Parts: sequence; structure tokens; C-alpha cells
Amino acid sequence: MKFDIMRDRLLDGLNDVMKAVSSKTTIPILTGIKIDVSEEGMRLTGSDADITIQTYIPVEENGEQLINVEKPGSIVLQAKMFNEIVRKLPTNDVEFEVSEKFQTRIRSGKSDFHLIGLDSTEYPLLPELSEDNQFTVPADLLKSIIRETVFAVSTSESRPVLTGVHWQIKDGELVCVATDSHRLARRKVTLEHLPSEQSSVVVPGKSLTELSKILNDATTPVDIVMTNQQVLFKTNDVLFFSRLLEGNYPDTSRLIPEEYKTDVTVNGRSLLQAIDRASLLAREDRNNVVRFTTMQDDTIEISSNSPEVGKVEEQIQVSSLVGEELKISFSAKYMMDALKAIDGQDVVIQFTGAMRPFIIRSVHDDAILQLILPVRTY
Amino acid sequence: MKFDIMRDRLLDGLNDVMKAVSSKTTIPILTGIKIDVSEEGMRLTGSDADITIQTYIPVEENGEQLINVEKPGSIVLQAKMFNEIVRKLPTNDVEFEVSEKFQTRIRSGKSDFHLIGLDSTEYPLLPELSEDNQFTVPADLLKSIIRETVFAVSTSESRPVLTGVHWQIKDGELVCVATDSHRLARRKVTLEHLPSEQSSVVVPGKSLTELSKILNDATTPVDIVMTNQQVLFKTNDVLFFSRLLEGNYPDTSRLIPEEYKTDVTVNGRSLLQAIDRASLLAREDRNNVVRFTTMQDDTIEISSNSPEVGKVEEQIQVSSLVGEELKISFSAKYMMDALKAIDGQDVVIQFTGAMRPFIIRSVHDDAILQLILPVRTY
Repeated sequence: MKFDIMRDRLLDGLNDVMKAVSSKTTIPILTGIKIDVSEEGMRLTGSDADITIQTYIPVEENGEQLINVEKPGSIVLQAKMFNEIVRKLPTNDVEFEVSEKFQTRIRSGKSDFHLIGLDSTEYPLLPELSEDNQFTVPADLLKSIIRETVFAVSTSESRPVLTGVHWQIKDGELVCVATDSHRLARRKVTLEHLPSEQSSVVVPGKSLTELSKILNDATTPVDIVMTNQQVLFKTNDVLFFSRLLEGNYPDTSRLIPEEYKTDVTVNGRSLLQAIDRASLLAREDRNNVVRFTTMQDDTIEISSNSPEVGKVEEQIQVSSLVGEELKISFSAKYMMDALKAIDGQDVVIQFTGAMRPFIIRSVHDDAILQLILPVRTY
Repeated sequence: MKFDIMRDRLLDGLNDVMKAVSSKTTIPILTGIKIDVSEEGMRLTGSDADITIQTYIPVEENGEQLINVEKPGSIVLQAKMFNEIVRKLPTNDVEFEVSEKFQTRIRSGKSDFHLIGLDSTEYPLLPELSEDNQFTVPADLLKSIIRETVFAVSTSESRPVLTGVHWQIKDGELVCVATDSHRLARRKVTLEHLPSEQSSVVVPGKSLTELSKILNDATTPVDIVMTNQQVLFKTNDVLFFSRLLEGNYPDTSRLIPEEYKTDVTVNGRSLLQAIDRASLLAREDRNNVVRFTTMQDDTIEISSNSPEVGKVEEQIQVSSLVGEELKISFSAKYMMDALKAIDGQDVVIQFTGAMRPFIIRSVHDDAILQLILPVRTY
């Protein structure tokens, strides 16, 4: 193998695939990055067995030559070392040459590196996915969907299926749900050209978090292919594969109350900040629980009390307060997560009594719905 | 005690004193910040017993009223909690009121905090320093002096006095030396109005690092008072006290060679970058040791070799190369630290053979001198 490449483009590609490489892997070859060079371009692959990321750099782009291939070939190089070397090379021209026994020479300016590579035929092959069940979501919307749900997955391995987000295609809608059994986040999106077949997968929360980091904030289309064991997200130059979680996801639809006794409409940002302040004291010794109390004249009070440290009270004017009086306690963290997901809009909070789950949604619609279980304190 | 204060100014003051507060202290009252309010202004004090920082906020500054004092007094509030509360208060007006049993009420907008304070009479008093031995250094120069020496202090407690920087006033010069016995950094500064008396103190490296964080990059004067047990750095509104290290600092002057066999003049930045690259491989299994070899035609070679990973070589053109041929090995980290201290200028490196310490200094003068012991590798 022998080729020259622009350092900056190689570095961009490496940045993406490095997100899949873990130093904790038990499969030695996965500490490496696979490099495949053909007459058309270069593919970089990184994987931790759960997530695999592949990027593609063409030989030529917009009339600019990015790679000059003298002899195609493949090699695996130790990921962390390779990435740091490329980052620190002195010039933007990098020359690669692989000779016998995977000896890899990397030259740039007067720097001359000789690395011992690994046999690329030992690197695991990518899964082959049938593209029948494919649909498309703009990158910025996909990022929002992830941000609005993934924080609510369980961090405990006691029910592994809850560490993922449940994606369902049903009646022309994509419905994404995450729950750790104390709170739930649901996002519904109506999309064009969804597969007519009903389908349902559970994507690991960690995969979605990593995917989110390589998506841009534009409306660039992302093609999504779901199969029984893998999901693939495809953008222009990146392929992102994730394994799926096994097991049946619980039916969460019946958790959401159908009628409410107290309705509060309030500015999400004001409520978030008041809870953030109350949480400063709540954190100290009461598991971060704050109290929410309805008052006269369209006012609510957020309070917390920590006998050793002190207490805090804050009243907030709400836009409307309808229904029964209420005193309810809940996790400040869960409420702040939910309000951040809805992101500063006016929100409606609907309660069914101090011991029942309550929901938070935007005043406009229920595309984003957050549900929280209260905490019994008295 | 009762007063109102501008939140932004309180926060600036807290930022400085928080740098002295440690959560690891064994003295419970030092987890707090002491607040003293008089008719003239507010003093905030934070301490970890080694370092004490005090800031002052006047009642009025440049015609703007910062504090409105209704009743003077003192209180100690838990530092981390107090700092976070002030940071998150909803408005720039903050009202404090301390009632019986150190009950402290903090109000801002509709937020109403009640904290349980501590008795300020239990807070340790500041040392009283005689100001006879006082001199002045501009803040930016003081920051440079610290940056150019403090990295070379020992991190091991086996000889505690080496964890500090030795400051000596002698013959109208301030000489600062740090060494961990493998390398040494020395900075000489000629200052006006130095005390005529010879004096010598060892300031803990950690104190200098913290001091550096609160100094600005301007020429604002910093008054320095040295006594037997404490040093005090005074700026306009901050007092920074540090205890000194006990014990005799070793005489380091005889470590510095007086004649040299090989002199190399080279661009500091090019050498730094080449060593940084060579260090990528050296780090893997050889204790981060790189080799420096003189070549023909005013060229040197930086190389490293790690049998399991690979090797790297890089040649650098130097401005001048005078004297004996040389192959020498040394710690890449020590060399990079030294070159960063001299900061990108052309440097002179003077060697006395492969087994003897060598020095690095600017081409212009020896105000900054760095010394490194080589590593025996063959």
C-alpha cells in the first residue's frame, strides 16, 4: 500500500471513527483503526463491537485532490497512537507506505515514523443490512429526538432493555420512548415515507449519545436502516452501526394518565431556575427532593428544607392554575431534565394527585411528553 | 448583621477566596467563608490553613454604591453552598440578614434562603506580618516568574523542601530556583527597591500555582512581604498569605556547569514540536526518553525507538552547532517543560558530554536558565 493524503481531511475522518474505539475492549484488534485504500478513496473503520463507525474520504472532491493513490491496500494501526501522530505531524502532506510484515512508514516534512501495524484481514467485517426497511430523518431533528429522550434511559443493568430507547414505527409515526421506571420521556414524530410495516427496536442509549456527537445541526438527511440485530445511520460520508438490545420493551402507554385533577401552565425557564436553586439545599441530605405547592392567585411555591443546612422558598407566578389544590414532592433532577428537554417554552404540567405520576408537555402539542413519578415525603 | 450587596461584585470576590478553600480540610470551620461587614466595606476570607485569601469590597467605588450596610457584623457560611447560591440567585440585588443563632437569610427577587451559619469568632485570625521587608513586583512579571520555575518543583514528599520554590534576595536581585533533583529551573530578576538585607524563603509550589490564578496580566503592582513563616502577596483588593516550607534548601549553584563542550543554537518552537512527536513513541515503553544526536551540516536528529510499537526520526536545521559530536538521551517531558518556560525564542543548549547535566537558555541572556540531567541508555 502506498498513498499521499491531506492531513486535515484524514484528521476529520479520524475524529469521527475514534468515537467508536474504546481502550477497554477485550478484542485486541479493536484497539486499532482499519484503513482501506482503493483507487476511489479511503475508508476508516473504528469499532468497540457494540458501535462501529466508518468514514469515507474520496480521492477527489470539488475538483480538489485529497488523496494520491500509488498502490491500494489495507492496514490496521493502533488507534490512539495513530490519531496523535496525525494530529502532530508538521505539514499538511502525509505519505503512507506499508511494506512486508505490516511495517508502516508515515512521513510528513522531516518527520519519519515507522509503526508496526496489524493484519487487516483479522478485523471484523461490517454487518450486511438489507435496506428494505429504510427511512430518512434530517440530522438536526434526529439530534433533537435523541436529546429529548436519551437522558431518561436507565443507568442500571438490572433490566438491560431499559438502558436503551424504544423506537417504534406505527401508523405513519416514529415514537421514541425511554424510561428508568421513575420517569419517562416520549417523543413522537410524523415522517414521510416511513416503512408501512410496523417495526420496533431498542437502541442502546450510549449508541445514541455517540451518534449525536457526530451529527451536524443542519437538515442534512440521515438514512436509517433497522433490522433485527442492528441499526444503521447513514450520512453523506459516515456510516454508524449499532447493535440493538434484546428483550421485550415494556408497554409504557398505560403509564400515562388519561385524566387530570390539577393543570398548571408556567414558563419552563423560570420553573427550571427556581428548581435549580431549591435543589442546592435539597441535594445535601434528602435525595434531591423538592416540594411543589399550589397557592392563591395563580402562584405556586417551590421549596426545600434540609434540617442541617437550611431551607429555601420561592414563589412563581403561573399563566394558569386550574383544578384541585396540591402539595407534591419530586426529584429536582428529573424535573430539570424534563424541562431542559422541552427547552424553555411555556409548559403544561398535569397532575392527578400527590401520589400519582404527572406529565409535563409543551403548551403547543404533546410531541414531547415527559412523565415523572412523585416521591412520598409525608 | 444586615446589608444589601451587588451580586456580581460578591461573586467576583467569592471566585478569588474560593481558591483557598479545600473540601479536604480537617478543620471544620475552614469549610466556610468568613464574611465581615463594616461601615466601610466587606471582607471575605477563605483558607485551607496553608493558603489564606482575603478580598475586600468597598461600600462605594467610582461613585457607584456596591453595598448598603444597615448593621455591621460577621458570619461564616459553608463555602461551596454559599458560592453556588450566589451564582444562581435570580437578580443582581442580594439582601443578607443574620439573626440569633447564626440564622442567615439571603433574599434576591422571589428567592428566600435560610442558612445555618457558623460563629465567626471561631475562624482563625490572619497572621500579622511586619512590613519591613517589603518589595514590589508587577503582576505580569510575577506570573512569568512563577510559570518559568514552578513546574520543576518535586512532586514527591520524600524531601519536602523540594516541593517549594527557593526565593532569594541577594545583591539587588531576586533569584528563584526550583528543582526535583532531575532538572532545575532558575529565574533571575533585577528589581528596584529590594530590601538591602539578604533573605531567603521557600514558597510551596502549590501556593504559587494558586496565586498565579488570581493575578492579572497587567503591570499592576503586587507588594510582597516575606517573614520567617509566612509570605504575603498584596494587590489592590486581594491579600494572599502562604505559609513557607521549613528546612534548608540545597545549594544548587554548583550544579550548573561552568564550561561546555558542545553548543547548539536552535529555534525553541521547532525543537519543542519535534520532541513532542518523538515523545509519542517514547512514552509507550521507555519512560519517555528521546535521543538527541548531532549530525553534519548544522543538523541535529531527534529520535525514539520503542521495539513493540515502532520508531521515529526527525532532523532539524540549527542556527549553529559548535564543539564535540554528541549522542545524548533525556526525558522528553523535562525538555518540553524547559522549552515551554523559555517560550518559543531561539535557545542555546550547552552540553558537557553525554553523562553530564546540560543547560538551556535564551540566546539573549541567562535570566531564565533550565538544567536537565541526561538519562543513561547505552
